[in-house]
Amino acid sequence: AIAAPAMAQQNPKISWKMASTYGPNLPPLFGSAEVFCKMIEEASGGQFTIRLYPGGEVVPGFGVLDAVGNRTVDCGQSASYYYYGKDPTLCFDTAVPFGLNARQMNAWMDQGDGLKLMREVFAPRHIVNFPMGNTGTQMGGWYRKEIKSVADLKGLKMRTAGFAGEVLSRVGVIPQQISPGDIYPSLEKGALDAVEFVGPLDDEKLSLQRVAKYYYYPGWWEGSAQVSLYVNEKAYAELPKQYQSLIALASRYAGQQLLTDYDAHNANALRRLVASGAELRAFPVEVLDACYDAAQEVYAEFNAKYPQFKKVYDNYMGFRDQTIPWFRLAEGSYDSYLNRALNRAKQQ
Amino acid sequence: AIAAPAMAQQNPKISWKMASTYGPNLPPLFGSAEVFCKMIEEASGGQFTIRLYPGGEVVPGFGVLDAVGNRTVDCGQSASYYYYGKDPTLCFDTAVPFGLNARQMNAWMDQGDGLKLMREVFAPRHIVNFPMGNTGTQMGGWYRKEIKSVADLKGLKMRTAGFAGEVLSRVGVIPQQISPGDIYPSLEKGALDAVEFVGPLDDEKLSLQRVAKYYYYPGWWEGSAQVSLYVNEKAYAELPKQYQSLIALASRYAGQQLLTDYDAHNANALRRLVASGAELRAFPVEVLDACYDAAQEVYAEFNAKYPQFKKVYDNYMGFRDQTIPWFRLAEGSYDSYLNRALNRAKQQ
Repeated sequence: AIAAPAMAQQNPKISWKMASTYGPNLPPLFGSAEVFCKMIEEASGGQFTIRLYPGGEVVPGFGVLDAVGNRTVDCGQSASYYYYGKDPTLCFDTAVPFGLNARQMNAWMDQGDGLKLMREVFAPRHIVNFPMGNTGTQMGGWYRKEIKSVADLKGLKMRTAGFAGEVLSRVGVIPQQISPGDIYPSLEKGALDAVEFVGPLDDEKLSLQRVAKYYYYPGWWEGSAQVSLYVNEKAYAELPKQYQSLIALASRYAGQQLLTDYDAHNANALRRLVASGAELRAFPVEVLDACYDAAQEVYAEFNAKYPQFKKVYDNYMGFRDQTIPWFRLAEGSYDSYLNRALNRAKQQ
Repeated sequence: AIAAPAMAQQNPKISWKMASTYGPNLPPLFGSAEVFCKMIEEASGGQFTIRLYPGGEVVPGFGVLDAVGNRTVDCGQSASYYYYGKDPTLCFDTAVPFGLNARQMNAWMDQGDGLKLMREVFAPRHIVNFPMGNTGTQMGGWYRKEIKSVADLKGLKMRTAGFAGEVLSRVGVIPQQISPGDIYPSLEKGALDAVEFVGPLDDEKLSLQRVAKYYYYPGWWEGSAQVSLYVNEKAYAELPKQYQSLIALASRYAGQQLLTDYDAHNANALRRLVASGAELRAFPVEVLDACYDAAQEVYAEFNAKYPQFKKVYDNYMGFRDQTIPWFRLAEGSYDSYLNRALNRAKQQ
């Protein structure tokens, strides 16, 4: 036998399976997973290929965490806050109420302790996690009636889940778990008063403006929402070092693709929604303050109950509180002024 | 002879030279170029290596554009607005007055027509360009006296250059080209009244608060500033497809590293500057309005004079004007509310 050259050993043929929570009906999310697979294949000269399955095909949408952990698939795309019921600490990998915006989240993951801490959270689940994008700030959902005060939230049957549902229940909302396909009929027949989904680009597909026209902002439970790549720890350890690097490179590449997709296309989706009847409303400050205070109550309870939650909370919120003044000063004043200048120009 | 396996041909040994405009005295910028080279090497299994030279070593700092174009080096790291004198259209690759913020810039480059248009601008210079990070919104510089009105700008000797200098000259500033090493002595002896450099993390090294303590925000000529990777077109064409993919992956990876470095570390640098005497000031709206109007004048002149400038300007500003309302609605209202909530929490 002839010894294979060293480079051939470094560059072996490997085929993986990947399960996503999402499907082609959510093009930015599913499309970013496709970009990840494509870049891995291209940059390995076709040697490392990953076959992507949409949610429900080999694994249920919300079964991705377990399926990667037990290597039903080698890797997966999901958002960790779906697994809030297993461990609320997982939410810090996606979004928590009144948390970091997308740039601050990237900074915490890359330069702060975010990635290190989240790797500790995922390790017992046999997963090596990588950030793979963000939706940016989401909307606060669709409502059949206006929300003018905290009293208007009392008894509101709202489709929402996880951590947001827990906080909203403290201000009187009755959270409901309803699959996307059932949202429209539930609103139509009055079994539901409100729905939070994502933002204009994804929400547009559900036509909710026809049955719940008040579209509120901002989604304070998702100031940003990070999407993750999960890799089975054994599958990862078996990769040659150069393919491990490719995973880091391609997940970040696809992740930026996801955020720019939302950042570039939400604006026009929102315009179309408004043209077809959506009425934009800002949550009143009184309502936001009540939700903020309710969130602090929930945080205090979780911090007392779950030591790992507290460890990540302290680090995450410390980073937020230290970083926000700078963002307000430079980015905030720039964005505000430019918006003002463009409005002034329009009036001239 | 034994035929080499296909994978060995795809994965040949290649060594490149890279020149940066920057050096180790600007750790975020130079460090991100180091990350680019490291990731290329790792993900190619050590087969594709790039040797990085700091500004001035094989090529002068502002000679990177030409050196890549004529293949003195195979690739380079620079910011395209340094080459304003060669072609003002190059500024759209970095920053223009009252332009896009960092997320909007990424969105324009990736999802809008930004990359396509800038590739057209670089093609006659024999360069294939890739975005490689951003500084975020910069500061408006250091001033020996407060700027309370447009009159305070008249006759101000300010270190600034390029497009910003052109606009500032219309409101009475006298732009000065001064190398970083001469800034401090020039301010000290009164030959200079003001200086714009970058932001807290880089500015800190110059100790300007000792001689020009008023530190203004925001830097409206750099709402964000994109850094670029230049690759010689022939060097790029000679690469196997998989290494071309690595260039796209690693430049985006290093680019995010650069932005998160500033986003995570500017806050504490600013705190240290304030502790050692810097006095923060916002530019008065009257001053910003005058500068905005001056910028429109310059834009109108350049649009009339340079057809390619106008082509890129229309596309870039169209993207800005279409996108900003969405950013104000979701991100803007979220960031504003959270800042308010944190201040309220502090007062309790």
